[in-house]
Amino acid sequence: MKVRVHVSLKNGVLDPQGRAIHHAIEGLGFSGVKDVRAGRLFELEVDDSVTDAQLDDMAGKLLANMVIENYRIERVAA
Amino acid sequence: MKVRVHVSLKNGVLDPQGRAIHHAIEGLGFSGVKDVRAGRLFELEVDDSVTDAQLDDMAGKLLANMVIENYRIERVAA
Repeated sequence: MKVRVHVSLKNGVLDPQGRAIHHAIEGLGFSGVKDVRAGRLFELEVDDSVTDAQLDDMAGKLLANMVIENYRIERVAA
Repeated sequence: MKVRVHVSLKNGVLDPQGRAIHHAIEGLGFSGVKDVRAGRLFELEVDDSVTDAQLDDMAGKLLANMVIENYRIERVAA
């Protein structure tokens, strides 16, 4: 089973990478983009026996920095 | 309108970051994880007038390295 973990910065946390990308998008001539936030995406291939609690544990301990980031776990049908 | 751009490595491209995370997950005592791939996630806040073609252009020119990465654009209801 495939699992996606989306990690994004919490609201209020400064995102210099996102800001740089926003500037670059405007520099390329695109208009209409109001904000860009950069985050990370992990795609895990796990056994069906892995529980939501275990995934939660992995994400909180290893994949996201819970001080400044949130995560969202999404199970994808295999 | 919120748009998410998921960027992930193409199949066959080596992913040392994902491999390191996989090892770390096993080191923490979790079992059942077969593979980990690391990618990036961009959350854009755009005007409703921004077209799919424009988003496609942004992702291909700036957000993803099309030589080694794929991207997927997802519009999220505001």
